[in-house]
Amino acid sequence: MQGKILTVTKRIRTTPFSTRIEKEVKGLTVYNHMILPTVFLGIEEDYQHLKTEVQVWDVSVQRQVEIRGKDARKLLEKLTPRSLENINPSKCLYIPMINKSGGMINDPVILKLDDERYWISIADSDVLLWVSGVASALNFDVSVFEPDVFPLAIQGPKSKILMETIFGSEIETLKYFDVKKFNYGKYQLNIARTGWSKQGGFEVYVEGRDYALNLWDELMLNGKNLNVRPGCPNQIERIESGLLSYGSDMTINNTPYECGLGRFCGAEENINCIGAKALKEERFHGPKKIIRSFDIKGSKVPFCNDSWPIKSDGKIIGQITSGVFSPDYQTNVALGMIDISYSHQGTKVEIIIENNAQEAEVFEKPFTSKLTPLI
Amino acid sequence: MQGKILTVTKRIRTTPFSTRIEKEVKGLTVYNHMILPTVFLGIEEDYQHLKTEVQVWDVSVQRQVEIRGKDARKLLEKLTPRSLENINPSKCLYIPMINKSGGMINDPVILKLDDERYWISIADSDVLLWVSGVASALNFDVSVFEPDVFPLAIQGPKSKILMETIFGSEIETLKYFDVKKFNYGKYQLNIARTGWSKQGGFEVYVEGRDYALNLWDELMLNGKNLNVRPGCPNQIERIESGLLSYGSDMTINNTPYECGLGRFCGAEENINCIGAKALKEERFHGPKKIIRSFDIKGSKVPFCNDSWPIKSDGKIIGQITSGVFSPDYQTNVALGMIDISYSHQGTKVEIIIENNAQEAEVFEKPFTSKLTPLI
Repeated sequence: MQGKILTVTKRIRTTPFSTRIEKEVKGLTVYNHMILPTVFLGIEEDYQHLKTEVQVWDVSVQRQVEIRGKDARKLLEKLTPRSLENINPSKCLYIPMINKSGGMINDPVILKLDDERYWISIADSDVLLWVSGVASALNFDVSVFEPDVFPLAIQGPKSKILMETIFGSEIETLKYFDVKKFNYGKYQLNIARTGWSKQGGFEVYVEGRDYALNLWDELMLNGKNLNVRPGCPNQIERIESGLLSYGSDMTINNTPYECGLGRFCGAEENINCIGAKALKEERFHGPKKIIRSFDIKGSKVPFCNDSWPIKSDGKIIGQITSGVFSPDYQTNVALGMIDISYSHQGTKVEIIIENNAQEAEVFEKPFTSKLTPLI
Repeated sequence: MQGKILTVTKRIRTTPFSTRIEKEVKGLTVYNHMILPTVFLGIEEDYQHLKTEVQVWDVSVQRQVEIRGKDARKLLEKLTPRSLENINPSKCLYIPMINKSGGMINDPVILKLDDERYWISIADSDVLLWVSGVASALNFDVSVFEPDVFPLAIQGPKSKILMETIFGSEIETLKYFDVKKFNYGKYQLNIARTGWSKQGGFEVYVEGRDYALNLWDELMLNGKNLNVRPGCPNQIERIESGLLSYGSDMTINNTPYECGLGRFCGAEENINCIGAKALKEERFHGPKKIIRSFDIKGSKVPFCNDSWPIKSDGKIIGQITSGVFSPDYQTNVALGMIDISYSHQGTKVEIIIENNAQEAEVFEKPFTSKLTPLI
């Protein structure tokens, strides 16, 4: 089903920045009922550029779910097993959000705007419905809604230089997952040291449409000498870096432990969380399968648009959920979920791609942090 | 943003039938995180064919949310203002599903499989999250999940003849919104006299993948003399017929009364429903705006991929949310939400499309039931 045209109706929302990328973008996906670019020059060209220069990404699809009201904190504690002790207006937090069985609802970043106001910056599922379902049923004193916020991600090794030209040298003081208010003309906006790449960068929470295009144009103008380009999350880079895609690499049928997110589950501190009981059991017994990185040897694999069975000793022991050829590692990099007993570093397995078997090796860490780099 | 390629990753799920339509389909959309065809030969060619022949639609995107357990009925009564008195295993029901403020969560059809088992056949929003959020918070004794069900819609004036060749003449006894179990080889499957067109037809709830392709192939083979083709919901036909698209014509910010679905709100009988209080007030005061059909005069409008302002006396009084040229009515047919005081039959308004104003006329009923047909 590759190569087909996406029909855009109102249900597939455009963003304030759509007019600025329409000419250059070659591929799109739909994420939270909204358009997200997938390719500009080409997936490998975009990848090389992201790793050496700076890109501006329209990630408006990273919708915010705002929780506002007296019970905001109490509600959040229902929603995640991660302790919220360390969240404050200058520190955002990556949280697994789970259901009663411990299944992943989403893996958002949350921002605390003030004591009674939080943003959940979501991956691709209608968290708004989950959160307001819980809040309504429990009669919590909160309102839950999607504000008009359109994040821009500035990513790549030169992102800091570009951001400085607009927001000043204070931008340098931000550490990973720090968030801070910056002035932009008469506006104030939240900027975080985050983003869905490991090339360094920032996310700017653009509120409303008033200054959105101004900011976009200024980033493009100031970045000219830095070879700035419009970009988007890149499949090769994010697989190398071990960044998981909700809906692809993990679904509602997986627990945080299966997703390698056990370190974010402080179930003991947060026993009010829906699903705390299920998680406790899972932690006690240990997960039966787990997400791993894979090095798939042999010929260049096709773009992974479904899943590829993982086999060993003639039986299926898992599924590859994302995979692509990496120019830098000169091999196929992949992510997938595998039976826990085959999940240790260096295990040799077979991946079945279009009826052919290709040899592969399990890596416990992402490629970018491998003990034995391939090049 | 028209004319761009859709990048398919695992997050954008394919269906059991994708392999059968891959060659012929020209356009796609994403609906409930899954692929839905939008065009085969062309939107006007598909439309003419749908109105004269028979089509088989892969509407797997119409995901089922199954509620199973002792509290299934009690939970459903929390979710909709419509009385459930008339639902039974041989009659399905179209229901507005609302939140605490009376905003539309979805507009599904529900099927009762037995006293403790229901399917919610959903439009494009993660109803699974809303329903399980409510159920978890209230500790209801139910499980809520998405079963492997992949509906096929057989639509068009010759659909009955085609269905008879496989399921026998009993298919004729089904009245609108009737549902019944039919045998298919060793399998039993639910068939309903429903579908998202007004050309007559059926929806077959294909369970699992075992017989899915067999059934598809048999429909195609048996339909050869009937000029059967793969098809999909058609924008022209559904706008003429006044079939609303959740996410385009109505959103979470609209009440059922605004969507013209007031007749499905028996708030008095169903006071347990979340949002009952808000609806009661809305009913008392009456909605401030309402969905209407529009006849947009003048030149052929472009495909509506966002929304077009509706103006009168120089002020904006609403938005067109879907619009397209209709070959049969030889005018532009549209749907939109308009200030209640401009909503009566025959009101003249202006629609602003790409900075040009086009005259339009309000219709209280869909084109297909207009008192004064245009042709």
